Amino acid sequence: MRDAYHEELDSISEGLVEMARLVGSAIGRATTAILDADLKLAENVIAADEKVDDLHRDLEARAIALLARQQPVATDLRIVVTSLRMSADLERSGDLAQHVAKLARLRFPERAVPRDLHATILEMGQLAQRLMAKAGEVIITKDVDLALQLEQDDDAMDLLHRTLFQHLMDDRWKHGIETAVDVTLLGRYYERFADHAVSVAKRVVYLVTGEHADEITSPTAVEGA
Amino acid sequence: MRDAYHEELDSISEGLVEMARLVGSAIGRATTAILDADLKLAENVIAADEKVDDLHRDLEARAIALLARQQPVATDLRIVVTSLRMSADLERSGDLAQHVAKLARLRFPERAVPRDLHATILEMGQLAQRLMAKAGEVIITKDVDLALQLEQDDDAMDLLHRTLFQHLMDDRWKHGIETAVDVTLLGRYYERFADHAVSVAKRVVYLVTGEHADEITSPTAVEGA
Repeated sequence: MRDAYHEELDSISEGLVEMARLVGSAIGRATTAILDADLKLAENVIAADEKVDDLHRDLEARAIALLARQQPVATDLRIVVTSLRMSADLERSGDLAQHVAKLARLRFPERAVPRDLHATILEMGQLAQRLMAKAGEVIITKDVDLALQLEQDDDAMDLLHRTLFQHLMDDRWKHGIETAVDVTLLGRYYERFADHAVSVAKRVVYLVTGEHADEITSPTAVEGA
Repeated sequence: MRDAYHEELDSISEGLVEMARLVGSAIGRATTAILDADLKLAENVIAADEKVDDLHRDLEARAIALLARQQPVATDLRIVVTSLRMSADLERSGDLAQHVAKLARLRFPERAVPRDLHATILEMGQLAQRLMAKAGEVIITKDVDLALQLEQDDDAMDLLHRTLFQHLMDDRWKHGIETAVDVTLLGRYYERFADHAVSVAKRVVYLVTGEHADEITSPTAVEGA
């Protein structure tokens, strides 16, 4: 029975990796959609989130079934409970990628992001995608050093977020209120996406080292501004 | 042992109710702090979130200990797993109340919210507080009808959010970009707070009826605009 148990645990872990892959791809494509005002791509990202939600539900059901059937204790119990949390993080990340795509769709055929902010948003999108790729790798490898790297990447995200706010608060801002609102929300979506990727990595660190990573408290956009 | 088990389950439930009470109070006080530019109150709300985080950690530890010790199955197992999720919702709600308070602190001695938006923000704050009070009551009473009411309240929150956006997008907006950014984030904080309250209530409905409430997908601010 122990073997069947660990097989099922591995399969849950594979599900998490697949979720990370899907939402990483989603944030990349959503970023392209919003920068290029690509409606088709935006629709595609919006529709694809269903797959992530399905995986999330499936994973939850399997984790609970595993708890009921195998009644794990100690580390094994923590692994299953942590998987549930990681799945929730990843599901929420998918929602955030979808929010970016929905903003692209809402503004189509206009572009939501003005030209002088393209580079910053592109960087935020790419960084978000890299963070999630690393989170997926951390799930597979349980590499604590790699997991700790994510916190540094998250600092880079905060810096980009601050850059975005400096643009917004600059007296020379000439893009009007609607764009300011859009950019504010976009910044928040990328920042929260990154928080969830970091959270996934921290949960792995906890499983491996037994040391509790601090609760992820998102430095609010406003604080950074 | 069954009695000790149900006592512990009750105590976890009481912990959740206490968390709901604390974060409901926090969002109410944070709203006062931001509308009155009350620095002391804002600091108070910011500091008080630690209590919520402590309760969350304590509750998680106890839920996991309960799983390990009692190895519940079926409904009992679902109750414990659902408690973990509700605790996460409530912890996050506390963060959002704290974000509102931090914005009040950041802008002090200025007021973050212009006079003509006071009524709307006040209403959002009060509605958020009521939603959380109801969520707490739903945890205690397991009253499905009351739980379903929360979704209607959440519709009211969406409406308020839309009102906020209409103000922002109005050509006569005269409060500048910084305030637009602040108001955008505030709107998002209240909306997400409400989502978490609804989520708590839906999780109770699921436990009682066995019917899966739809995954809470937050109607993004932008979509509502």
